Formats: sequence, structure tokens, C-alpha cells
Amino acid sequence: MGRHSLEYPKEALNKVKRVYALEQIHSLVNSSPLVHVSLGPSSSSSPFPVTLPMIGQMGSFSRPSASLGDPLDLYLHGHISSRLFTTPSSSSSSSRVPVCVSATHLDGLVLSLSAFNSSYNYRSVVLFGHAAPVTDELEKLYALKLLTDSVVPGRWDAARLPPTRAELQSTAVLRVEIASGSFKARDGETGDDRHDMENEDMRRLVWTGVVPVHQVFGSPVASSYNRVEETPAYIAEYAQEQTRENAEYAVNAIKAQKK
Amino acid sequence: MGRHSLEYPKEALNKVKRVYALEQIHSLVNSSPLVHVSLGPSSSSSPFPVTLPMIGQMGSFSRPSASLGDPLDLYLHGHISSRLFTTPSSSSSSSRVPVCVSATHLDGLVLSLSAFNSSYNYRSVVLFGHAAPVTDELEKLYALKLLTDSVVPGRWDAARLPPTRAELQSTAVLRVEIASGSFKARDGETGDDRHDMENEDMRRLVWTGVVPVHQVFGSPVASSYNRVEETPAYIAEYAQEQTRENAEYAVNAIKAQKK
Repeated sequence: MGRHSLEYPKEALNKVKRVYALEQIHSLVNSSPLVHVSLGPSSSSSPFPVTLPMIGQMGSFSRPSASLGDPLDLYLHGHISSRLFTTPSSSSSSSRVPVCVSATHLDGLVLSLSAFNSSYNYRSVVLFGHAAPVTDELEKLYALKLLTDSVVPGRWDAARLPPTRAELQSTAVLRVEIASGSFKARDGETGDDRHDMENEDMRRLVWTGVVPVHQVFGSPVASSYNRVEETPAYIAEYAQEQTRENAEYAVNAIKAQKK
Repeated sequence: MGRHSLEYPKEALNKVKRVYALEQIHSLVNSSPLVHVSLGPSSSSSPFPVTLPMIGQMGSFSRPSASLGDPLDLYLHGHISSRLFTTPSSSSSSSRVPVCVSATHLDGLVLSLSAFNSSYNYRSVVLFGHAAPVTDELEKLYALKLLTDSVVPGRWDAARLPPTRAELQSTAVLRVEIASGSFKARDGETGDDRHDMENEDMRRLVWTGVVPVHQVFGSPVASSYNRVEETPAYIAEYAQEQTRENAEYAVNAIKAQKK
């Protein structure tokens, strides 16, 4: 078993380590169908932060050839009426809203002898950054393609194009410049304290192990007004591939050795 | 298709509607293996809110017989060193930290003719409330059993009991008193604008439909030091039952009629 953590790298770090950390962090965000975006309290009248589940993807408009190991921005989109796009500070002169973005994968239920040592296998990223609305039309289209293709790769070009003017106007896109962040994960089997491990009676009584957990993308269900006879391969194969990868990760994570 | 939303009910609402809203909201939180808990910026030195993935469950220590349709508190636990338990205001006189708790289930990828009308089927709850540390030992044990049994029902009594003094001391429990919140969901098939629906050429070109998504609890994998021959039924059956329920929900959600 192991607990792993990585900091979002600063320039000072050596290159191999920096690229590795960026790849881990960016891949986890990009393989998450949903991220949770949090904002601080909106005003003195409400003391509560606000969290919104959204689609988010790492990318680089200024350098579209950038790979996952390069510094990237996070793109988010939503209806212009959404809280994130109407927050007071977004219309102020600075137009930059501090946000926290969280992406979490649950990989297993870890059932140890003691409840205290029980846990989850998981992978989690938290990113801190400043969100600002994207006003450049080409960057907006870049981000909308990026976000649409994150749901099913190739869907942007397969769907009706181009977006209408009304669609573009009612969709807001945010670019989050990342300031810092971290990656945390747990994998491996159960772990227990010595005093429990040495209790042979208890070990014969309490089952210990891991229930792997993963997300399944099931068989596509055509809509009532669909006129395409077969589900296109880019959808059906993507669903199968993602499901297989998710399942393999969850099972392999249990076998991970302590590093 | 439909978009549904419910507000966390105030006393004024009629009883049937109130109980229904509470049941929907509380069940969704309790069926989420993870919730995301957000705090406002910790100090003037950092402008960012912070989000932590945690295990959370609705319950009532003062009224353990309360059902899901009754007002309930949210319980969270974590290591005492965690940010949530060491936040400055938690040690101040008020000891109440404003938090936002989010629970989200992804149920399907909704692929419409236009990218703009594409969406997710999902169910999501956001709760706002004040978190305070639980100091009463009996309430702490109540919450730890509640949280452990949320991972696999019955696990608390099956695992090594009671918790040691050291375990209890290093585990902090928070009770969140709910101030407000809401439930949002989308279900059903795809939806498109009339101008796209009337374009027969496009409908013959672009596949429309929903890819159901659900979480699988796979076959339990025993640990290297496990001495119990068979996986106990309360674990194996729970994993199968949850998987079946999740799969059924995702597929049935596609068939939901507009309300």
C-alpha cells in the first residue's frame, strides 16, 4: 500500500520531476468527467463558499501543441447565468476570481481489521487558481471543442457545426490560471497496526481486503429521434475502452507495492 | 427529458413536500461514497477557497430513530491534522466554520445533435451549513459508526471494536448544521432545438443518444494477511446490490419522461 503526494511544480524543480508531476496532475483532471469548482463567499451577506460540479479540461490556447507535462490552463464552461459567471468580482476591474478546483477518483473500499485503519483507494487533485472569462472568440471555440471532446473524443467534429451566434452568446467560458495545487493518492491493500495483526483470533474473524470501485460507461442508448442506424465506433469504442481502463486501474491499484 | 430542482425545505413548506425534498437530498448524500467539502479562504494571505474530498453522512445523534425525511445533520470525520479541523475559526470562540458540501452522481453522457444541447444526466446536492467539532464521546462514536457503515453496512460491528483511545484522539468528527441547500438533476434522453430537429440530413448524419454511466463495486480482493476463507455476505452482497442499483438508475434515467 502507499500514500502518494505531489505538489504542483514550481520552476525551481528539476525538469524530469516537474514534467512527471504535471503529467500526473493534468491527466487526472482530464480523465475526470466532472470537477468541483469552489468560490469563496460571494459577499458579506452569505458566509458560505459555493461549490459547483462542472466539466473542466486542461489545455493551452496559446500553445495548442502543449503536452500534459507542460504548464496548462484549466478551461470551464457554463451558462452565462451561472453563479460562477455572475460573481461580483468577475465584473470588477480585475475580473479574476480565486477558485479551488477538485477532481477525485474513487478506486476502492479498503476494509482493514480496525475501522480506524480502513480507508479508500483514491486519486485526487486540488488546483488553486484565478478564473477569468474568455473574451477572444477563437479561444472560446478552442475551449468549447476541448470540453466537448473530453466527453467523447471526436464529438465536436461529429456534431452540428458551427455553433450559432445565440449558442455562443449564452455560453460563457472561463480560463483558470493555475497558481498551485497538489496530487494525492492511496493504493495497495489494507494496512493494520501491529497489535491487531498479532491477534490471530481476530484475523480469523474479520475479513480484510479491498472492494475495487470504478466507473462504467455502458451501452449507448439511441434517442427516439435518432436516424443513425449503428452507434458510431468513436462512441461505442470509447465507452468500452474507458470502462476497461477504469476497471484495470482499480484492480491493479490493490496490487501496488509500498514505495 | 427533464431538469429537476428542489430547495432544502424551510418549515413553512407543506409537510408532504418537505419530507419529499428532505428524502431526495439526504438519500443522495448518503448514497455518495464521497462528498466535496469547501471552506472559504483561510486568511488574508491566501485568496483561495479549499475543497476536500471526504466521507459524509446525514444522521441525528439526538434522535437516532430519525428517518431520511426528517431534518438531519451532516457528519464528517478526518485526521485531526486535516485543514478542516485546524482552520483558525474552528479554535475561536464561535468554533463554527461555514462550509459548502457537494455530492454529485454522474448518470449519463447526453449526446445531442448540437454540442450546445449536449449535457450530462446527473443528480447533485449542495448543502450550506456550519461545521463544529463533536466533543461528546458518545456522539463521536455514533458518527464513526455511521460513517464506517456508510462504506459497507454492518462493517462497524464486524471490525475490531472498540476503537482504542489513541484512535479516538487522532480522529476528529465534525457535525454540520444545515442552513440551506438544493437538489438538481437532469434525466431523460437528448433534447435539441427545432432548427436542428427539422434538418433531416443532419439527423441521418449525427448519432443522438445517451451513454449511461454508473459506479461499479467489483469483486472483493482479500488481503495478503486475511484469514477468513470466504468473503462475508454483507460485503459481497452489498457490492453486487449497489452495482445493480447504480446500473438500473442510469439506464432508467434515460427513459424518464418530461415532467
